[in-house]
Amino acid sequence: MINANRAGAVLTVDLNVLVKNYAFLKGQIGNNTVCSAVIKSDAYGLGLEPVALRLAQSDCRSFFVALMDEAITLRSILEKHDKKAEIYLLNGVAEGAESDLDNYDITPVLNSLTEIERWSSHAKRNGRRDAILNVDTGMSRLGLDTRELDTFEANPEIADGIKITYVMSHLACADDRDAMKNREQRELFDNYRVRLGLQHASFANSAGILLGPEYHYDLVRPGAAIYGIQPITDEINKITQAINLKGKILQTRFVDSGGTVGYGATYQTIRKSRLATVAVGYGDGYFRTLGNRGFGYIGTNRVPVVGRVSMDLITFDITDVPEHEAAPGTMIELIGPHYTVNELAIDAGTIGYEILTGLGARYSRNYIGSS
Amino acid sequence: MINANRAGAVLTVDLNVLVKNYAFLKGQIGNNTVCSAVIKSDAYGLGLEPVALRLAQSDCRSFFVALMDEAITLRSILEKHDKKAEIYLLNGVAEGAESDLDNYDITPVLNSLTEIERWSSHAKRNGRRDAILNVDTGMSRLGLDTRELDTFEANPEIADGIKITYVMSHLACADDRDAMKNREQRELFDNYRVRLGLQHASFANSAGILLGPEYHYDLVRPGAAIYGIQPITDEINKITQAINLKGKILQTRFVDSGGTVGYGATYQTIRKSRLATVAVGYGDGYFRTLGNRGFGYIGTNRVPVVGRVSMDLITFDITDVPEHEAAPGTMIELIGPHYTVNELAIDAGTIGYEILTGLGARYSRNYIGSS
Repeated sequence: MINANRAGAVLTVDLNVLVKNYAFLKGQIGNNTVCSAVIKSDAYGLGLEPVALRLAQSDCRSFFVALMDEAITLRSILEKHDKKAEIYLLNGVAEGAESDLDNYDITPVLNSLTEIERWSSHAKRNGRRDAILNVDTGMSRLGLDTRELDTFEANPEIADGIKITYVMSHLACADDRDAMKNREQRELFDNYRVRLGLQHASFANSAGILLGPEYHYDLVRPGAAIYGIQPITDEINKITQAINLKGKILQTRFVDSGGTVGYGATYQTIRKSRLATVAVGYGDGYFRTLGNRGFGYIGTNRVPVVGRVSMDLITFDITDVPEHEAAPGTMIELIGPHYTVNELAIDAGTIGYEILTGLGARYSRNYIGSS
Repeated sequence: MINANRAGAVLTVDLNVLVKNYAFLKGQIGNNTVCSAVIKSDAYGLGLEPVALRLAQSDCRSFFVALMDEAITLRSILEKHDKKAEIYLLNGVAEGAESDLDNYDITPVLNSLTEIERWSSHAKRNGRRDAILNVDTGMSRLGLDTRELDTFEANPEIADGIKITYVMSHLACADDRDAMKNREQRELFDNYRVRLGLQHASFANSAGILLGPEYHYDLVRPGAAIYGIQPITDEINKITQAINLKGKILQTRFVDSGGTVGYGATYQTIRKSRLATVAVGYGDGYFRTLGNRGFGYIGTNRVPVVGRVSMDLITFDITDVPEHEAAPGTMIELIGPHYTVNELAIDAGTIGYEILTGLGARYSRNYIGSS
C-alpha cells in the first residue's frame, strides 16, 4: 500500500461512475439480456477487488476474466464479502484445470474441440457441467474455427455431459460503426448458431452494445465502457470517465533560453522558461511516447511535457502559469476532466485501454464510492 | 503470487547475471570508487526484494531509489535479512519527510535550496545529518540550478549541520559516446565542485561508467547495465541479458487465405496459415505497438506477431513451424537469447528500460540464484 503523503502521484477511481456506466449500458439492452462485466487484467488496471465488489453490490451478477488466477482471486473476493456471481473464464479449460474450475465454481469458455472433449470427459465422470462455447467469426484468436465447427456439427456427442449455456463470439471492428465486418461477423455468428442448434448467445462487447439491438442477444460483455472509455471512435457516448491522476511537483526551476531538458537533450528552451519536475515516469505507466507530446493541467492552464519522459520523472513547461500556482507540492492533472484518458492515449500513440492497464503500482490509490 | 502452472507466461530473472553485470561494472572503476546500485521502480521491474537481497549478498552496499515508499520498503527488506546498506533517496526531502528519513536511516539527495534549508533546519535541531547534493548540469530535472548555486556559494551556512558526502549530477546523453554534451556536462560539474569546495563526487550512470575514468569520480550509480540493458547505443558491451519471458500457446488454428486477425482486422492472411494464440497481451506490458511488428521464437524458428496485440492475447503466425513443435501448451520465447529486450524494444518503438519496468503482474516469476 502506497502512502498518500509520500507518493509522487495520486490515482482516484470513482467507483460510482463505474456503476453509472454499467447502468447506462444496461439501459441500452432489453430486460431479457444479461449484462455481465469484463473484469480481466485487474479490472482494466483499476483494481480487481474494489471494482468487483462495487459492481457486485449493484446488480452485476456475471463476470468475465481471462486467466485462471484472476478467476480464483475474484471468487475469493466475492466469497469474503458474501457475494454470489457467475465467473466465466475466457481462456478456457487448460490441461489439468478441471479441479480448479470445480473448486472455485468457475464456468469455462470452451475455445476448441480439445477443450470441449476435456470438459465433456470431466462432466461424464462427475456430473453435468456448464460452459460457454466460443466460435470464431473473424478475430482468429480464440474459439472454434470452421473445420472444428464442421467436426462438432457432425459429432455433437463430443460435448456430452456439457450444458452449453451460451454460444459466444467476439467482434473485431465494433469501435467503427460503419465497418462492414460487424455485419459479416454477425451473419456468420447467426449461421453458426443455427447449425449448432444453440439458442442462447453472447456477442457484444461495449461497442457492440452501442451498435444496436441486433448485436445484443442474451448476454452482453462490456468492459471498456464500464471503466470510462468511449467505446466507439469519433462518437461521444454517454460514458463518464472514471479516473483522474495527479502528479506532485517535486521541484521548479528557471532555465535560460537554450537550456536542454531530459535525456538526449531532445528539448531546448526558446525563451527563459520555468519548468516543473513531477514524480511520475514511464516506470509508472506514463508512456515514454508522451515525451515532448503530452500535456498536464494546472487548474485550467495547459502545460506541455518537455523533454523525454524518464523512468521516475516528467518535466513540464510552466512558464505561462503564475508562479504561486505552481510550487513544489502542487498537483498537476495528468489525466482528468481537462485531459482525458482518450486524449492522453492519442498523444501517446495508443488506446485508452493500454493506458488503463498500464497504470502503475507506485500511485497512491484513492477509491470513491467503496463501501 | 501467480501459480506457474496456471499462468499464461513465465518470466525468469537470473539474479546471478545481475551479480555478474554488477561485478563487470565494478571492474571498470578504480578501487577507491564506490559502486552503488540503482534499484528504483521495483528494481527496473525485476522485483525489488529478490534483486536487493541478491546484490546485498554480493558486495553492494549502497542503493539509490526514487520514492520514499521504495526506500522504506527496501530498508525493511534489508533488515529482515540482516543486511546493512546505505539507501539514498533521489527525490529529496519532501515537506514533513524528516522523520521517515531518520526512522528508516535514509540519506536524501538534496535537489534545491528549499530542501537544503529543510534538512539543515532538521540537522540543527537533531544533530548532524548526511546528504548528497545534486546540481543540475543539463537535465533540467532535479538539482540546483545556476541561480541556486550562486546563492548557495554566497551563503554556505544554508547547509549548516549537513555533511555533504557527495556532490552529484546526472548525464543526459551518456548512451551516445560521441555526444559533445557529455564533456560539456562534465566541465560544468567540475566547475561547480570547485566553486562549492566539495571534493567527493558522483556523476556516472551505467553508460557514464563506460565513457571512461574521467566520469567515475568517487561513487557510480549504475542501474540499466546491472539489469542486462546495453547502456551505450550501437556498442556491444560485456553486459549479459538477465531475463527471459515465455508465453504459453492457448490454441492453434488453421486460417484460410484471406482470413483476418485481431481487432481492426489489421492483418489478413495471404496463404493458408497456422496461427497460435498466446496468453499474454498489453495488459501484461507486452506493448501494443508490437502488433504486426514483434516476433517470438519457437526453438530457433522466428514467428511474427500478426494482428493487433489484445489486452490478454497475442497471435503468432506459426505456419512455417512443424505442427508438432507448436501445440497448445508449447511455450513461445517472447524475450530471450533469440529476441533480446533491446530488439523487442526497438520493434515496440521504445527502449529496453520501458520494457523492463512494464513487465506485468500476471507473469509467474521464477528467480534463478536467489538464496
